[in-house]
Amino acid sequence: MRHPQLNENGELKHLLTIEGLPRQMVHRILDTASSFVGVSDREVKKVPLLRGKSVFNLFFENSTRTRTTFEIAAKRLSADVLNLNINTSSAAKGESLLDTIDNLAAMHADMFVVRHATSGAPFLIAQHLNRVRGPHVHVINAGDGRHAHPTQGLLDMYTIRHFKKDFTQLRVAVVGDILHSRVARSDIHGLTTLGVPEVRAIGPYTLLPAGLEQMGVRVFTDMREGLKDVDVIIMLRLQNERMNGALLPSAQEYFKHYGLTQEKLALAKPDAIVMHPGPMNRGVEIESAVADGPQSVILDQVTFGIAVRMAVMSMLASN
Amino acid sequence: MRHPQLNENGELKHLLTIEGLPRQMVHRILDTASSFVGVSDREVKKVPLLRGKSVFNLFFENSTRTRTTFEIAAKRLSADVLNLNINTSSAAKGESLLDTIDNLAAMHADMFVVRHATSGAPFLIAQHLNRVRGPHVHVINAGDGRHAHPTQGLLDMYTIRHFKKDFTQLRVAVVGDILHSRVARSDIHGLTTLGVPEVRAIGPYTLLPAGLEQMGVRVFTDMREGLKDVDVIIMLRLQNERMNGALLPSAQEYFKHYGLTQEKLALAKPDAIVMHPGPMNRGVEIESAVADGPQSVILDQVTFGIAVRMAVMSMLASN
Amino acid sequence: MRHPQLNENGELKHLLTIEGLPRQMVHRILDTASSFVGVSDREVKKVPLLRGKSVFNLFFENSTRTRTTFEIAAKRLSADVLNLNINTSSAAKGESLLDTIDNLAAMHADMFVVRHATSGAPFLIAQHLNRVRGPHVHVINAGDGRHAHPTQGLLDMYTIRHFKKDFTQLRVAVVGDILHSRVARSDIHGLTTLGVPEVRAIGPYTLLPAGLEQMGVRVFTDMREGLKDVDVIIMLRLQNERMNGALLPSAQEYFKHYGLTQEKLALAKPDAIVMHPGPMNRGVEIESAVADGPQSVILDQVTFGIAVRMAVMSMLASN
Repeated sequence: MRHPQLNENGELKHLLTIEGLPRQMVHRILDTASSFVGVSDREVKKVPLLRGKSVFNLFFENSTRTRTTFEIAAKRLSADVLNLNINTSSAAKGESLLDTIDNLAAMHADMFVVRHATSGAPFLIAQHLNRVRGPHVHVINAGDGRHAHPTQGLLDMYTIRHFKKDFTQLRVAVVGDILHSRVARSDIHGLTTLGVPEVRAIGPYTLLPAGLEQMGVRVFTDMREGLKDVDVIIMLRLQNERMNGALLPSAQEYFKHYGLTQEKLALAKPDAIVMHPGPMNRGVEIESAVADGPQSVILDQVTFGIAVRMAVMSMLASN
Repeated sequence: MRHPQLNENGELKHLLTIEGLPRQMVHRILDTASSFVGVSDREVKKVPLLRGKSVFNLFFENSTRTRTTFEIAAKRLSADVLNLNINTSSAAKGESLLDTIDNLAAMHADMFVVRHATSGAPFLIAQHLNRVRGPHVHVINAGDGRHAHPTQGLLDMYTIRHFKKDFTQLRVAVVGDILHSRVARSDIHGLTTLGVPEVRAIGPYTLLPAGLEQMGVRVFTDMREGLKDVDVIIMLRLQNERMNGALLPSAQEYFKHYGLTQEKLALAKPDAIVMHPGPMNRGVEIESAVADGPQSVILDQVTFGIAVRMAVMSMLASN
Repeated sequence: MRHPQLNENGELKHLLTIEGLPRQMVHRILDTASSFVGVSDREVKKVPLLRGKSVFNLFFENSTRTRTTFEIAAKRLSADVLNLNINTSSAAKGESLLDTIDNLAAMHADMFVVRHATSGAPFLIAQHLNRVRGPHVHVINAGDGRHAHPTQGLLDMYTIRHFKKDFTQLRVAVVGDILHSRVARSDIHGLTTLGVPEVRAIGPYTLLPAGLEQMGVRVFTDMREGLKDVDVIIMLRLQNERMNGALLPSAQEYFKHYGLTQEKLALAKPDAIVMHPGPMNRGVEIESAVADGPQSVILDQVTFGIAVRMAVMSMLASN
């Protein structure tokens, strides 16, 4: 059965997950993004590729930061952008998710950027639109539950390709709360798809999901051991609600064992890069000296993220 | 005395209510809307009619859905749109409604789209602007208290005209909480203005206002009787707050007597259309099999709604 | 040491405060604003000066009114505007102010309009951007704590210049809660910079800060005395939270002593103008007969405010 994110020609119709995307398609997205990196540097940061299109930011879960990245990307493509924070609207009035979608689609929406606390919600929306609306409405998953955050995964791949060129010689470590992280999941799918030979997951037992080995990932609970000779370190955000929960003793304890310090960073390759999806908890999962240090590419990730989102939007709209 | 929504030439300056509009003016709005239906189908869904105009969505009562329809309509007309949710701003600081309006008008606002919990608020604003600001600022009532929701009424008329062509041969039933419904009131004014010979109101005694007969409406408390041989069924939304209130025993009881089921729908003419202003309470006022069935035109209403709002905005701006 | 709002050529790079700006620079801003007053009167209220620029409204403190004035100004300059209400986003997630700024700057923001409850926050942001980002990102202070509200000060200067032409012959009274007012502070700096020979501050002892005399201001606690023969009266808003606080007996008492009535207004020059930054508390600091009377220029301030903000934005972007 065809994945709902691909059309009958195998082109990307929606972007729901990196899992299962062919390697050359991921590279094509990154190549397209590369052509957009320059746009944001120009005097007039706009191209007319989505002029007259209506892009809806459907955020069922609040995230000003992620919403902003998509809003900028869409505006630089000249789209009309509509922000809908759904907690306070129809959902509160008891309308079903798909009724909301049907309504907005009936207004001739061209693209939905969907953030939802429930894993699979964007998938459900895409399937529904495929069934009832034909090929002209597109869905981008902007983070669903613990499942996937594919544009974050892609911008992480863009960043790694930018700094390391060749994926097939790399050791990459993903560090932190893997269990609850859709970013980790998308990164792991991206890395294995692109041929990274050694992907490592580092975290406390309580925050490591089962099944990582089957995904081709080496698991470490000792961070010093896990960081040894890696080329790329992807730190994950520790959600506030975990900090004093049952799964972790305390933020201080966490920092001691899994916080990235200069001393631990020294165990990686000398030219290793440090990444973080943001927002950072300084002093919890990462030390400021590292976050702001010469190996940090955290702000490059943000810059590339706009280009990657422009690439995805323009590719979906043209397929 | 002239109605404040008309200028000295009898043209529409504001849209506050359908009540009292000449029949040919309503038809002219629907004709104009018809020319906009195609715009939303185009590759580039934009016309420059309101370029450089500032449209303010003034929502004193939250409604993401309605606000969105006006925002899309204005953006497709190339206007600059500013969304003001007033609960959290000046109103909270104790500024009076008319001071807020005066301020925004002083910023050279061109159009106010006003939603307010108080019946008559948009009327008050329009009168004030007529007095102090001259002919260049326009008000559209986007729903005021229990009074009127004229763009919803007009899009309902557009939908009926689209599917039934001739108003003068129709039987139309409006079903549900007529008492609290500004949609019902606007629909009834639209239908009688356009010459519908038989308008029926169906609902429980407690949700039927006095005076319907004087508006030329036949009243039914038995839904089966009321639906007999009608051409159009307009279902109303049952507000959540009514469901367990003093006026109704329960949502289940309501559905049993006034929910539109396939079985009750069979009493209407075989080609009867089913309408609903949304958002729907499936299983309360309407059964899913009907909402998604072949006689439902509920999503067409949404599509036509954008065109009707574009028509009203462009006509006001050009008068 | 150079003030962080000026670049190495002494041009305005950020607008943080009026304090310390050279007189001719203030006049240049007002002259530029004057060229924008006409834009808002046109059929198409748009100029392309900021086309393709990304302007971020960063409101760490909610103010729909102020945010709206900047949003309109930016849109009339053809910028892309992004509104970020930060209470509900990253700040809640514990991200630091400067991390938020770094992130948005990495998205190639061109301008930040910052409102913050903490005095000095926009200053901190500008210093940080000067250090890490080079000359292409601009900050406008849209009100910080009790410190400054320079665009309000400039629009007040614009208004006075418009109606009174020559600053060097004027007596100007600022009346009310001087202690907590960033507007008062910015006005006083504007007035003294522009050569107003007599600036008066009028208010109860408890709401007058120390050090006014050193700023060249004459202090009055008796409003009748203070208003005698003034050319300009700038009334301040009494914050709700002061009304029943320890510093004031009651709103009624306040009105009796410091509310501007027609009777008190008669003590000023016959052609004195009355100003207020809004939103007004009618019946607290100002009587409706005065607010709506022939000497009131309160709505002119609003109109000029858009032009002044357009001027500041376009000058920063071109420096």
